[in-house]
Order: sequence, then C-alpha cells, then structure tokens
Amino acid sequence: MKTQPFAFELLGAEGAASQYDSHLARRLSALAGQFSDQPAFEAALRQGDPVAYEVYSMARPEQPGELSHGLSIVHPGRIGSEYFMTKGHFHAVRETAEVYHCLKGRGALLMENEAGDWALEEFRPGRVVYVTPGWAHRSINFSEHDDLVTFFVYPSHAGHDYATIESRGFRKLVLREAGGYRIADNPRWSPVPL
Amino acid sequence: MKTQPFAFELLGAEGAASQYDSHLARRLSALAGQFSDQPAFEAALRQGDPVAYEVYSMARPEQPGELSHGLSIVHPGRIGSEYFMTKGHFHAVRETAEVYHCLKGRGALLMENEAGDWALEEFRPGRVVYVTPGWAHRSINFSEHDDLVTFFVYPSHAGHDYATIESRGFRKLVLREAGGYRIADNPRWSPVPL
Repeated sequence: MKTQPFAFELLGAEGAASQYDSHLARRLSALAGQFSDQPAFEAALRQGDPVAYEVYSMARPEQPGELSHGLSIVHPGRIGSEYFMTKGHFHAVRETAEVYHCLKGRGALLMENEAGDWALEEFRPGRVVYVTPGWAHRSINFSEHDDLVTFFVYPSHAGHDYATIESRGFRKLVLREAGGYRIADNPRWSPVPL
Repeated sequence: MKTQPFAFELLGAEGAASQYDSHLARRLSALAGQFSDQPAFEAALRQGDPVAYEVYSMARPEQPGELSHGLSIVHPGRIGSEYFMTKGHFHAVRETAEVYHCLKGRGALLMENEAGDWALEEFRPGRVVYVTPGWAHRSINFSEHDDLVTFFVYPSHAGHDYATIESRGFRKLVLREAGGYRIADNPRWSPVPL
C-alpha cells in the first residue's frame, strides 16, 4: 500500500485505471435474487453468466481520514425490463458518505435508507452524486450499448454491508420503458426492522 | 445543508458548479510572501490584484464520514518565473487525505509533509492525485492561457491549517523554464519544528 502521494490515469488507454490494487469483475450470478424477472435471469446465466460490472480500486488503510477511490464500470445489458446494475450495498459504518462523479454513459444511482426513504439521481457525464451517510446505493446503466463509468470516493473505514440488500432487495425497481424508465415498487422488498 | 442525497453538474454552463454552498475567489494579495519575486508580485497587485483561483464547494457537517467536495479553478498567470497557484495548506487534522481529479488544463500538485519530504504530481485531464494523510498541498497552473480545473474530495472533519504554509512557505518552488518547468529550493522555507 502506498505511503507517499501518488497519481494515476483514471481511465487509461485500456478502458481501465492505469494503476490499481484490486480489480473486481462481478458476474450476473452474483446478483441472484435482485432482478424481478427470474426466468430471464436464469436464461442469461445459461447463456454464459456475463460480467455485469467491474470495479478498479486503490487500496488504502481502513481508517478514518483515508479515502478509498476508484473506477466503477457497469456494462450494458438487460434482464427482462431491468438494466444491468451493481449489487448495491450499505456501508457497514452507516455514518459514512460516498461521492460519485460520472465520467461516461448514462444511468442512475438508486438509494434508500433504513427509515424507508428512497431517492434516484441520474448519472450523466460531469454529474456528481452525493450519497449522504446511511443510504444504500446501487448504480444502474440505462444504456443498451455503452458502459456507465463513474469515479467513486468513500471514507476507507466505511466497510461494506452487502447482506442487507442481498436479503431484502431495494425498495424500488427501475424498469425500462419506451423513451425512458419508470420507478416501481419491488414486490419482494421488505423493510429493515427498526 | 442537504440531509438527502443530491446531485449537480460539476462543471456547468458558466464554468462553475451548477450548485454550490460557497464560492471562494482568492485574489493574488492573499498569497503575500509565497512568490519569490517580490517586485513582480507588488507590480501585479498594483495592476489590479487579479483573482488567482476560485473554489466552489458543497457544505457538509464537519464530522468523520462526511465528504467535502467541489471544484477548484486556478486561473492562468505568472509572477516572475512562478505560475499562479493556490495558497496551499495542511489539514488541521493531519491524519486526513484528499483526492483530486483533474478535469481541464495542466499543472501540478506540490506536496510536502512535516518530516521534510516533498512530492510533485502532474495534473492532466483524467489524472487522479492522492494526497496521503499529513501532506500539505498546493495546486499550480502551468498554462499561460487556460484554467486548471480539478474536482476535490476530502474528509469533512479535516479542517484547514493555512498558517503553517503562510509562515514557512513550501520547501520547493516550481519555476517556469523553456519547454517545461524546474523544481528549485525555496530560500525562504524553514522546516516545521519537530
């Protein structure tokens, strides 16, 4: 792990960060239970379980004051009426925020907190989305052909809680519709017990 | 201050963030004592004390877990052989990092820590610079004509210590040279007492 200041090209010639400590390639199978159209999901798995998204990140000590950061790439694709998306997660330390800066593509960040509030902010190149502390977040790629590419920064002590979303889902679904998208209730969602 | 997630255009139509809570326009006079060519500095003040740089930022609670962020714009210009630059500062809470992402222009981030180490990382569009905890940092615009524009993110509890650099300066000067720049010792620098 670097102890001196450092620099790198966020989006290098290969469409990846020019330097990174870790590269995560998440296949569709990792999102089991998250898409509403189960037959379409199973059909996609049989056709090769494609990589739905990738994350390049720089390693930092997991302590307050350090900033974990990197590149998120959600590939284009659909499962029924739903777009390819990330698993989505809360931070294990709830009182930690995250900042996204969209570099390429179009999509949205779907968010919700444990009080049951939800929010959707669109991603377009140049747009910054601030995830206030306590909000789970999922990136969704609206494009049929192009990657959604964002730069992310979060406090390194945040940790990841994937389990809450894995078991309960997000409250809202984002569904493709002619000329755009619509937001629908997720019939499989259950609230976090207070 | 916003308590819900929010989004904005980082570089809006007017060359500023589309939303911001504060706008700082720092005139050259705020950098008194930082340029090595004092007659050139005084001449520039007499010619109108131009704005050397601007910062648009979103307000966040000054607590760990929140991320202060915004847009930094260093205008082009020179004082003798030195380029326009920011005052530069340590974070008051030394154990806090900062991330910069260069959006436009070319320049560098000059850094140093209290042990006397220094570092220079160049800014070009797409380049990320990570300021590890404990390093003071100053943005320098190498262009004669164009702004240096960067997106910055730092932990909101970091605070600012401008006084150390105001009184001691940076260890190194970055001086314009035919075809590039060179790094020289700052004769007016003094180390931080241990």
